Amino acid sequence: MRTPYFSIAVRSENPGHRPSAEDLVRTIIDELKAGRLPAGGRLPPVRTLENQLGISKNTVQAAYDELVARGLLETREREGVFVAQGPDAVPFVETQVSPPSPPLRPVPAIFQRAVPNGSIALSTVLIDPELLPRERVAECARSVLRTPGMQALSDFQGHLGLRELIAARLRKRGIDASAKQVITTIGSQQALDIVARALDVRRVAVENPVYPHARALFENHGLSLVPLQLDPFAGIPLDRWESVLAAARPGLLYCITSFQNPTGYSYSTHELRALLDIAARHGVGLMEDDWGSDMLSGSDVRPALRALGGENVLYVNSFTKKLLPSLRVGFIVARDDLVPALVAQKRLSTLGAPWLAEATLSEFLDRGYFDTHLAALQEALDGRYRRCLETLRELMPSEVRFTTPGGGPTLWLDLPKRVDVPALAQVLLRRGVFIEDATHAFHGEPHLNGFRVSYAYLSEERLRVGLEIAAEEIRRALAT
Amino acid sequence: MRTPYFSIAVRSENPGHRPSAEDLVRTIIDELKAGRLPAGGRLPPVRTLENQLGISKNTVQAAYDELVARGLLETREREGVFVAQGPDAVPFVETQVSPPSPPLRPVPAIFQRAVPNGSIALSTVLIDPELLPRERVAECARSVLRTPGMQALSDFQGHLGLRELIAARLRKRGIDASAKQVITTIGSQQALDIVARALDVRRVAVENPVYPHARALFENHGLSLVPLQLDPFAGIPLDRWESVLAAARPGLLYCITSFQNPTGYSYSTHELRALLDIAARHGVGLMEDDWGSDMLSGSDVRPALRALGGENVLYVNSFTKKLLPSLRVGFIVARDDLVPALVAQKRLSTLGAPWLAEATLSEFLDRGYFDTHLAALQEALDGRYRRCLETLRELMPSEVRFTTPGGGPTLWLDLPKRVDVPALAQVLLRRGVFIEDATHAFHGEPHLNGFRVSYAYLSEERLRVGLEIAAEEIRRALAT
Repeated sequence: MRTPYFSIAVRSENPGHRPSAEDLVRTIIDELKAGRLPAGGRLPPVRTLENQLGISKNTVQAAYDELVARGLLETREREGVFVAQGPDAVPFVETQVSPPSPPLRPVPAIFQRAVPNGSIALSTVLIDPELLPRERVAECARSVLRTPGMQALSDFQGHLGLRELIAARLRKRGIDASAKQVITTIGSQQALDIVARALDVRRVAVENPVYPHARALFENHGLSLVPLQLDPFAGIPLDRWESVLAAARPGLLYCITSFQNPTGYSYSTHELRALLDIAARHGVGLMEDDWGSDMLSGSDVRPALRALGGENVLYVNSFTKKLLPSLRVGFIVARDDLVPALVAQKRLSTLGAPWLAEATLSEFLDRGYFDTHLAALQEALDGRYRRCLETLRELMPSEVRFTTPGGGPTLWLDLPKRVDVPALAQVLLRRGVFIEDATHAFHGEPHLNGFRVSYAYLSEERLRVGLEIAAEEIRRALAT
Repeated sequence: MRTPYFSIAVRSENPGHRPSAEDLVRTIIDELKAGRLPAGGRLPPVRTLENQLGISKNTVQAAYDELVARGLLETREREGVFVAQGPDAVPFVETQVSPPSPPLRPVPAIFQRAVPNGSIALSTVLIDPELLPRERVAECARSVLRTPGMQALSDFQGHLGLRELIAARLRKRGIDASAKQVITTIGSQQALDIVARALDVRRVAVENPVYPHARALFENHGLSLVPLQLDPFAGIPLDRWESVLAAARPGLLYCITSFQNPTGYSYSTHELRALLDIAARHGVGLMEDDWGSDMLSGSDVRPALRALGGENVLYVNSFTKKLLPSLRVGFIVARDDLVPALVAQKRLSTLGAPWLAEATLSEFLDRGYFDTHLAALQEALDGRYRRCLETLRELMPSEVRFTTPGGGPTLWLDLPKRVDVPALAQVLLRRGVFIEDATHAFHGEPHLNGFRVSYAYLSEERLRVGLEIAAEEIRRALAT
């Protein structure tokens, strides 16, 4: 690397207007006197000053020549012009000082674990990559890259064509929405983040157990959480929820109405209707996270909270799990007049959205590839669910309970209280099976004692192996 | 659309294990009695319950048949099974209630304006799309889409190959960095957001005028700002900065060391060295936003704050302005031990980064396309800067001052106090020229009275037209 030079600010009586060689000489002498150019420091190359000041090379060279003649500067062959080691020169000192690094908050506990490589991940909600349409996505990306316009920063609200296609899909599911109510996001995580940062409330009600990423996010934004107990075997205790909401009066209730994370529970239609009623009565806003419903076959005629409750319900969904995780496209649907406040938070967070991913997805939807893909995905997940259910019924002792979500990505398996789940997780890990610790999802003492069994990620063979090992260790734990 | 059905939670004594037709009959009767299935409500299709419960179609059909025979349900041709209007049935009521929408914070003032379509945007810091290598980016994207692995969620810290290439580029600029210190972000806006949310401090020092997006972001996160006055014609008043920092003791100082937004000022090397000294003495962390330096030719031998100050200086940069805005790839460089806390905030904000954009950029760098492109871009900007400077010297009265940044994207033009800049902006807008109002960038009474002149976005012809109109109106304003 060439020696870095000292960039200097050339001051002038008449800033911007053309300086003479004399102006330049005077400036450099001032810099030297003030100690802003220490001995041995390299001056800017002639070409740099020529460019910077918009003057001729000769003018700069004349100034440097005069300063060299006066013994203030010296020229070193092939290295540049340097401050001479004269009697008045300020000695060059390598900068040694280092400012402190700024204090940062600790890493939330949920980010301190990871799925061990190579283990059978029995709890992951990702979809088996084999089920994802990589080739067709690539085909769409190639196509959009051929069209001009990629250079532009996209609409801050999101790619318009994509927003239109999303709204049309939602209308087919009974959700009355238009493109101007859709805001694209970097997966559903950014959707939650945007809402959390836009909220002008202090308290948010969440399910207990709660989706740990949402919990960490809300807590990170300083929101205080109001837990609402959820038991996937008993459903929503509506009276209890109502009294908690009436007492705490949170500004928002965040709920995952299909395949709740981590329990896999899906709200019944009666529960959705009752929840709208309670929310209206106690002035609680609602945000529905609907990530899971469209993985379930036939779910287009199973109403979402947003379908029943109308445009006041904030609605969040994502293509991440159903298409390619690496595209990271999610969205929020909000009432028209709330859109500017949410888009403002999106701009503060990431300014625009990656156009390439959004345009590619738009093409993928527009060609009808997504409908075909989703139907095939639902069928595959239905099949895997059935196999998982059969395997559990075959292998698990009758004391072991599990939910029957009907398809999709995941169910909840619960064990008698006498089984120590963290200890079981350790034993399973030694045998190459990873189950997720849901501890971080609970407020207070957990009222469940189990883990998520996901059939979406693993092949049927790997799932069978994982469940055989799990059943064996569960029987052993029950026997002791 | 088919009639939406009432999804029901089938409860069981022995959850998960196979229910009989009798169990199903009992469940539905319980639902009816409890009012969870009102008269006229549609029941789940046979196939849905078959799937959900993992039982045979015949079992479900037998249960429905019995309930129809008992007069509790009724079958409607091609529509499904519905709750009969019996004497005990709970009447169906369309959900009318709507919860309130949650209260949101107002839209920050900076997002309430936009560049009017078709006007000559004299202040934008975007790069002329003509200078951007769309075809070569498309070539790289096509290439990465041919390689497998796209389905995976990328490394949360960012695409490893890209991080390695970024670190190598930084080392060539005198910045000692490794891939494990680089965190990719959605443009530099997310870099600032991630740092802001990770900070465990209450006060942040910023330049005055400040980059308005950073100001809105920091204020949105509840940070209180300590303004440090910056005059691009006078440079940094180091003594004044030191006394402000000593008194306020902010945890971090955020500065844009090249082409400061909005003044276009670049810190001299002496100022960078002095700033490190002051920060070390008063315990202030530093974050350098270096978005602009590499648009300037020869800047690889002009040290950045991070090059002089070492790894404690947080460093932020982005490819947005230099490549394609729509790729939205920026990055943070941080000391190894700070990386986990920053990656955690990235995960809370957007979980992963869009793999496609990062892989494409990685390929673009790896093939050497970026070096070629950047050299050509720098040359083009050098040329545009020279033309802009010549035009200003030709057209502007001597009372008008402007900075001489030497190339890059933008300079600051300042007018005598008697010119009312907002009024001038109105006049110019009527003549089709848009200058940006920098009011939101100042803390308190503005000490500058001008606007940014950007030569990167407009063609030389459009810039000339814009400056001619501006000069005419400035002369008119000075004459009155």
